[in-house]
Amino acid sequence: MIHETTIEDCTVRGVRLFDLRHVVDSVRGNLAALEFNQDLPFVPQRIFMTYGIPSESTRGEHAHRQCAQFLICVHGECHLCVDDGENREEFCLNRPTHGVLVPPLVWAREHLHSVDSVLLVLASHPYEPADYIRDYNEFKGMVKEWKSMP
Amino acid sequence: MIHETTIEDCTVRGVRLFDLRHVVDSVRGNLAALEFNQDLPFVPQRIFMTYGIPSESTRGEHAHRQCAQFLICVHGECHLCVDDGENREEFCLNRPTHGVLVPPLVWAREHLHSVDSVLLVLASHPYEPADYIRDYNEFKGMVKEWKSMP
Repeated sequence: MIHETTIEDCTVRGVRLFDLRHVVDSVRGNLAALEFNQDLPFVPQRIFMTYGIPSESTRGEHAHRQCAQFLICVHGECHLCVDDGENREEFCLNRPTHGVLVPPLVWAREHLHSVDSVLLVLASHPYEPADYIRDYNEFKGMVKEWKSMP
Repeated sequence: MIHETTIEDCTVRGVRLFDLRHVVDSVRGNLAALEFNQDLPFVPQRIFMTYGIPSESTRGEHAHRQCAQFLICVHGECHLCVDDGENREEFCLNRPTHGVLVPPLVWAREHLHSVDSVLLVLASHPYEPADYIRDYNEFKGMVKEWKSMP
């Protein structure tokens, strides 16, 4: 059975929740797919994966100036908090078909990882340390400035 | 501890074995990364994942005319056979840092999946059914023709 991609907005600016196109087949196994040009607002330049994360560990805790990301917990489970400086939401990511688009200037935090979690992140830009905003007050200031722009 | 990317060739034409750049950290957890422009000969246009594959099921069993792929078993384990029409090799994929580059005109087959396996595939082209070569004899004929080209 083929399920087509569905996309939902949420209260956090620009964050979109995807249920990826997938085929469920009890004999051959399952397949989930993402076509970048068709489904995403960017073609990724980089991927990274986090795994073997202790359940008490928190990852993320930053926003990006320019880089957009797409997060899928491809095995196990973790929680993702997103925050645009005004609204905040938390999602449980626990299947390969569930992806979350996080645009620039949205604060993200991952926590409550299961011992077997593997989080796949597709990033719109190469790795660039200067693109990270790691101070929450600086982030709030940038959001305020951004919103006051004509 | 940071491990830089290493890449090895094998006996099958164009197939390359990657150990991805990764950080091992028992407190924060582990991270593996792949920068497309720096590490890969293509920028992927698509990803797909196979999961919940019965151990007796075989996936793949085809080559591509144009599409190159990069395969990572991000959780669990599966075996990958690659065959260029002359040489054949089989690899056990069982960690998020182990990636295999499979160029066009290489036959690939995945089997012996563990119950918890998740195979991530990065593809150089959008999905195109006409790009698949599903008949092994046709594949052998194409390889022969390709090798006889000036």
